[in-house]
Amino acid sequence: MSNDLFRPVRWEGDAETGYLWMLDQRKLPAEEVAIDLHRYGAVAEAITDMVVRGAPAIGVSAAYGVVLAAREAAAIPPTQADAYFRSALKLLAKARPTAINLGWAIERMLKVYVEVMDGPPSLIVSTLFNEANEIQAEDTAANLAMAKHGAALFDGPVNILTHCNTGALATSAVGTALGVIRELHNQGKLKMCYACETRPYLQGARLTAWELQREGIPVTLITDSMAGHLMKTGEIDGVILGSDRIAANGDVANKIGTYSHAVLAKHHGLPFYVAAPNSTIDPNTVHGDDIPIEERGADEVTTVSGMRIAPEGIKVRHPAFDVTPAELVTAIVTETGVASPPSAATVAELLDN
Amino acid sequence: MSNDLFRPVRWEGDAETGYLWMLDQRKLPAEEVAIDLHRYGAVAEAITDMVVRGAPAIGVSAAYGVVLAAREAAAIPPTQADAYFRSALKLLAKARPTAINLGWAIERMLKVYVEVMDGPPSLIVSTLFNEANEIQAEDTAANLAMAKHGAALFDGPVNILTHCNTGALATSAVGTALGVIRELHNQGKLKMCYACETRPYLQGARLTAWELQREGIPVTLITDSMAGHLMKTGEIDGVILGSDRIAANGDVANKIGTYSHAVLAKHHGLPFYVAAPNSTIDPNTVHGDDIPIEERGADEVTTVSGMRIAPEGIKVRHPAFDVTPAELVTAIVTETGVASPPSAATVAELLDN
Repeated sequence: MSNDLFRPVRWEGDAETGYLWMLDQRKLPAEEVAIDLHRYGAVAEAITDMVVRGAPAIGVSAAYGVVLAAREAAAIPPTQADAYFRSALKLLAKARPTAINLGWAIERMLKVYVEVMDGPPSLIVSTLFNEANEIQAEDTAANLAMAKHGAALFDGPVNILTHCNTGALATSAVGTALGVIRELHNQGKLKMCYACETRPYLQGARLTAWELQREGIPVTLITDSMAGHLMKTGEIDGVILGSDRIAANGDVANKIGTYSHAVLAKHHGLPFYVAAPNSTIDPNTVHGDDIPIEERGADEVTTVSGMRIAPEGIKVRHPAFDVTPAELVTAIVTETGVASPPSAATVAELLDN
Repeated sequence: MSNDLFRPVRWEGDAETGYLWMLDQRKLPAEEVAIDLHRYGAVAEAITDMVVRGAPAIGVSAAYGVVLAAREAAAIPPTQADAYFRSALKLLAKARPTAINLGWAIERMLKVYVEVMDGPPSLIVSTLFNEANEIQAEDTAANLAMAKHGAALFDGPVNILTHCNTGALATSAVGTALGVIRELHNQGKLKMCYACETRPYLQGARLTAWELQREGIPVTLITDSMAGHLMKTGEIDGVILGSDRIAANGDVANKIGTYSHAVLAKHHGLPFYVAAPNSTIDPNTVHGDDIPIEERGADEVTTVSGMRIAPEGIKVRHPAFDVTPAELVTAIVTETGVASPPSAATVAELLDN
């Protein structure tokens, strides 16, 4: 991992006394402030409140949250420990509904727990700690593999549109879609990255613009509404973005606005790529329509950085994600390869590799 | 005109001593502040700075700006008056490049001027004043006619998506597209108006939401990026919005983001309507590609109400408008009728009616 990368989530210290360090992404780019999390409840809250965001980073955060839950369970009467631990995992799993990586990481931690749950508490904690470290290490490796697979999809110097933030701030390393864009830059194949600001939460304006600017990667900020116009005027050669959950049939849930970009790309004959680790694929979700779409509060739409931009009392819709059908996706890129075109068969193959 | 309507531009007093009163739309919805304009230069500045916006309201403002220019010309040595007046009109015409109503109103005022320019200054001023009043009265009448023509396009109770602000604040009466939406409400045919917030300038969140809310018309605010998702989930039955210039072939320039909505409507088989007065049609612009697209400053993208939302020094694109080809437009509605589908022939017919 490059030293330039800003890791949003990391464990500080050892398993028994350490804590989860988290960059407060709500404050970027104005301030670089971190918070230290010593209890699993604080981790769940940080995920809900979007201190951390980005499906892979949420998965890693939840895994370390499970370590904290095990440590708390070890400190209460042994007869209550198992129930405490399991209810903690249920609460963590509910912190946000759409990103499957959250449930995936907790399931994986639970499997490891079941293997050692009859052992001494210190063994439980250290085993879970090792597993959380492993999840983060795997995410790092997946980022790098995805970047290579994704960059190979583009030939010459290209102008790429992206949405939301899928970079170092959303993962454990170079990112998913933004990892591909970094790799394109490294290979001299990136002319410009057009970063959509990504209303309402402005992950593009606040995070993607900030990440790319500090690494000297060419980036131009646009509002989400400009994407169609720039495709029409020939200023965009392709789209690449991330995902919070991929259904077994290749349908893709991602940040609200993704679906519009997919329809626009189709209309203009441009390739539309999704980059995400295999942990984002949910074999139990057969179809995109089965993915729960989080409806967040009105305040994120009616205010920007605490400043009110709409009349008091106005009715608001705020679906935080949308679902793009597989037929609008040119290819899905994961650490194990490329599903092109995405289908039940090609997506299953990614998981088998 | 309903008493509930908030007229954004009006002349106060008589031709010789009066002034142009303008609601400062940059301050809405937080504050209702007006400014008084006594010189044409201040009117040009107010148009450039978007104190007033909306193509018809810009046209009316410019017409009264011409009255002020004539008054200023009457106060200088007669040998210089004509040159002063004509250079004033050139400056007014350059205040914003995309809306044709600006140039249209100034041309019309100039024609009237030429007829009386050899008369006494007081006649010149009063004749121009009458013409400006006439332009505003015609816009009011056009609004009402458009509302009737537009509402007749919808059968039952519908959910309508709109973009930017095309209401009382953009015109002299009920508005263009928003006039149609008001009429649908009056006829009991409006279930819900989904108002796109319209980044970067937030005319939807600040102005459309405010206008509809204060009249009790059902309105739900969404970010621009949610339009595709709501069309996909069946929550939108049609789109209606305004225009800043319509080319002779039916191509439509309008607020950035309009083109994306048109492509999305096409993809979902939804009707896409444009409502604008005949003064928006520019017979001299043959094709949409010939319409100049204003590129505004980066600050409107990187800040919201003065609050910075992106890193300092970030590169930005800010086309303020886009062009939607006629083939994506179901119909154009003006005060003289409906061009459906829009074409050189049907658009010419609107002007002949």
